Amino acid sequence: MNYRMIVYIMGQISKVVGLSMFLPLFVGLLYGEQHAVLSFGIPILMLLIPGFAVTIKKPKDNSVYSMEGFVSVAASWITASAIGALPFVISGDIPNYIDALFETVSGFTTTGSSILSNVEALSKSSLFWRSFTHWLGGMGILMFVIAIMSSNDSRTMHMMRAECAGPKVGRLVSKSGSSARILYAIYIGLTVLEVVLLLFGGLSFYDALIHAFSSAGTGGFSIYGDSIAHYNSVYVEMVIATFILLFGVNFNLYYFLLIRRFSTVFKNEELRTYLCIVAGATLLITVNTMEVYGGFLEALRYSFFMTASTITSTGFATTDTNLWPVFSQTLMLMLMFIGACAGSTGGGMKVSRIMIVVKSGIKELKYIINPRAVTTVKMDGKPIEKDVVRGATSYCIIFALLMFISVLLVSLDKFSIEESASAVITTMNNIGYGVGHFGSAGSFADMSAFSKIILSVDMLLGRLEIYPVILLFAFRKR
Amino acid sequence: MNYRMIVYIMGQISKVVGLSMFLPLFVGLLYGEQHAVLSFGIPILMLLIPGFAVTIKKPKDNSVYSMEGFVSVAASWITASAIGALPFVISGDIPNYIDALFETVSGFTTTGSSILSNVEALSKSSLFWRSFTHWLGGMGILMFVIAIMSSNDSRTMHMMRAECAGPKVGRLVSKSGSSARILYAIYIGLTVLEVVLLLFGGLSFYDALIHAFSSAGTGGFSIYGDSIAHYNSVYVEMVIATFILLFGVNFNLYYFLLIRRFSTVFKNEELRTYLCIVAGATLLITVNTMEVYGGFLEALRYSFFMTASTITSTGFATTDTNLWPVFSQTLMLMLMFIGACAGSTGGGMKVSRIMIVVKSGIKELKYIINPRAVTTVKMDGKPIEKDVVRGATSYCIIFALLMFISVLLVSLDKFSIEESASAVITTMNNIGYGVGHFGSAGSFADMSAFSKIILSVDMLLGRLEIYPVILLFAFRKR
Repeated sequence: MNYRMIVYIMGQISKVVGLSMFLPLFVGLLYGEQHAVLSFGIPILMLLIPGFAVTIKKPKDNSVYSMEGFVSVAASWITASAIGALPFVISGDIPNYIDALFETVSGFTTTGSSILSNVEALSKSSLFWRSFTHWLGGMGILMFVIAIMSSNDSRTMHMMRAECAGPKVGRLVSKSGSSARILYAIYIGLTVLEVVLLLFGGLSFYDALIHAFSSAGTGGFSIYGDSIAHYNSVYVEMVIATFILLFGVNFNLYYFLLIRRFSTVFKNEELRTYLCIVAGATLLITVNTMEVYGGFLEALRYSFFMTASTITSTGFATTDTNLWPVFSQTLMLMLMFIGACAGSTGGGMKVSRIMIVVKSGIKELKYIINPRAVTTVKMDGKPIEKDVVRGATSYCIIFALLMFISVLLVSLDKFSIEESASAVITTMNNIGYGVGHFGSAGSFADMSAFSKIILSVDMLLGRLEIYPVILLFAFRKR
Repeated sequence: MNYRMIVYIMGQISKVVGLSMFLPLFVGLLYGEQHAVLSFGIPILMLLIPGFAVTIKKPKDNSVYSMEGFVSVAASWITASAIGALPFVISGDIPNYIDALFETVSGFTTTGSSILSNVEALSKSSLFWRSFTHWLGGMGILMFVIAIMSSNDSRTMHMMRAECAGPKVGRLVSKSGSSARILYAIYIGLTVLEVVLLLFGGLSFYDALIHAFSSAGTGGFSIYGDSIAHYNSVYVEMVIATFILLFGVNFNLYYFLLIRRFSTVFKNEELRTYLCIVAGATLLITVNTMEVYGGFLEALRYSFFMTASTITSTGFATTDTNLWPVFSQTLMLMLMFIGACAGSTGGGMKVSRIMIVVKSGIKELKYIINPRAVTTVKMDGKPIEKDVVRGATSYCIIFALLMFISVLLVSLDKFSIEESASAVITTMNNIGYGVGHFGSAGSFADMSAFSKIILSVDMLLGRLEIYPVILLFAFRKR
């Protein structure tokens, strides 16, 4: 393990997060919030001073394998959350540190679960920082998944190939430096485009920025208690729904669009499945909720938005899904597990992983019906290696085990099984809202500190796809 | 596919079920219930006439591979349930056929879920038949698992080896004829022993028989609305809890006890894990429910019984678990999934399968922490073949997929997500009661006919471990 390189990477990330905090500081000053100087100034110093100190000299041995990548990413995510929570505490917007930490972890992991019962009471600078953590987290996860996970390191490949199962030839460029720049450009470009389109919808620049940040990270923090329903505008809803769906697509595909390899994009099985699931779920929910909304078009409006918001793990809301028939709620629950495409900013188990697992299940059934029929699991027409299938199934099993343990621990709190399970499902899949008590209108405020910590760990586990977090603790033991 | 042999096996099973119906007919006459002649006479004829007709001559080609075994077992189970439901309808005890079918499937699959809201209103002969289906179902599943699944047929072995993962050397004897006789003897012996011990506890012969039948099949039907709580006797509770735990043990192990290979039994990893889980869960629930029962010993009494009843998938109740703290309820839910040992009459996923899946998950994590450490999944100290691990994980995945689909279908009914999930979990794992509405005090009476059919299919899927039911439908398509 190259410890010096881990510290170096953590230093670099600290610098990025530290510098990015100047933005909310600036917003605070713009709106005359004088507390912003201290509430952002202190964490900025806490990030920048050690950040610059450890990055003065790059270690001579600058080899970074997946191991180092994983550990530094997990450690950075935790450090960024621990220090990124301070502005909320110092400004007095969220006086309790555990609450502030939950909110910040929820931000960086692009979950969007909140302990706030009245979000509109927060200062402008805090609200800006809160949504900006989504944007930073979204960018971070893209870098992480595409740069580290799809590296040529064979150890990583073994575990994570499923992750990039879509386009096998899909590594952007050989050096992560250039691929990073292309990614930044696509990510920033899409965000800017959404801001512009939201401005056309009549949103203020501040509102447009906030919601574009939350869309880009598929996070879900809003500045209104009733989320996107606040605007009551079909145009705004359609723009946001479209963009969160776009941010839920494998970013490799945008690269292929850029280099005009359209056929690769249109033939991509994960993308097609993703779109089919969205279309199918939207249709089923529309038909099922027509009575609630008194008409097909009205039902379509809400079901499309909520389907997009749920499958991409965003967690924006335009309606209270607790009012829906149970069938639609159950469909929502399934969408939460499925999640967005691999290599996107979305959460959940990922469409490609679910596809591999379902296909391997069907293969097993086919084998039982006819043992002589040789069947292989295929994606994009090509057979998938056994290791990839094993990796995907192992992931699902470990995910389920951790989920069961989390539910058991959260059940020590004062909530019902359904509520405990709902809280764990929504955080591990990085959605933001669950069903029932933690539905789109609910808050995590009344949970115990213990539950909040468990759920924060779950958000990290879900966001970093478990292994880095496990490695971090294994690493510490040595 | 040897169709003639399938028909022959179905004929044999029809004869067994038909002949066994003379017992409740006799009970009915004993208690002066004249309707018993017709209500049992008609189905007896419906089973015996075709049964004898197709078994007059054994087919020349009497080769039975797993394929034939699976299809005939699944078909027999369905036929027995379809005709076994008639006594309830003809006697008027359960006038609706779908309800009677649900009750009978629940009986033969040893689930114990009931659509009855007042079980005590049934006639003696119907109640006897109801519990006797548990006993027959339990014997059937033992024969099925041990005789068919652990046969030397390589196709079966591939799929089902996980099933018999405990004692690899554990095939009783080479010919299923002799192993069947040993099994019958052990099964009947244990049942008789339980009847005797229950008689000592002051139960009438009728009551003792009924509850011994339900214990043997780990079914859970009682003749009282408040189940075993009716007797309010620590002695009766301890006898029943001990026996259901015994019926939840791999029956191969009893054979080893008979031939005095004690070390094989004590070293059996599945057995030890099973007992550890029972002890651990009992202790945790005892501590967690002490306040409810006002003392350690009283809490121990209820938690031990309910733990035994749940992990063995029996579903007898001595208390209403809805009164327990959520932590204990969540533990119960986990026990439902774990289930009893492979090769027992218990349901659920089976301890050995869960062990394999958890071990393979841990192996994967170990590999990620240190890719150079070669780790294998072991049971009873011996490494398990990859195919077995794959079989176990595939089973879990297919089980989960079918469960999700079932919940979605049941959610079309008028129940909450939690209730729909609870109903599916309890039926697929063959428990009998779930949490919430379908808790130990609840009934499935107010479900729609559609839901009852879905849940009946789930009971069959869970009991026959999915594949035979799938094969039956695949077979029909040809």
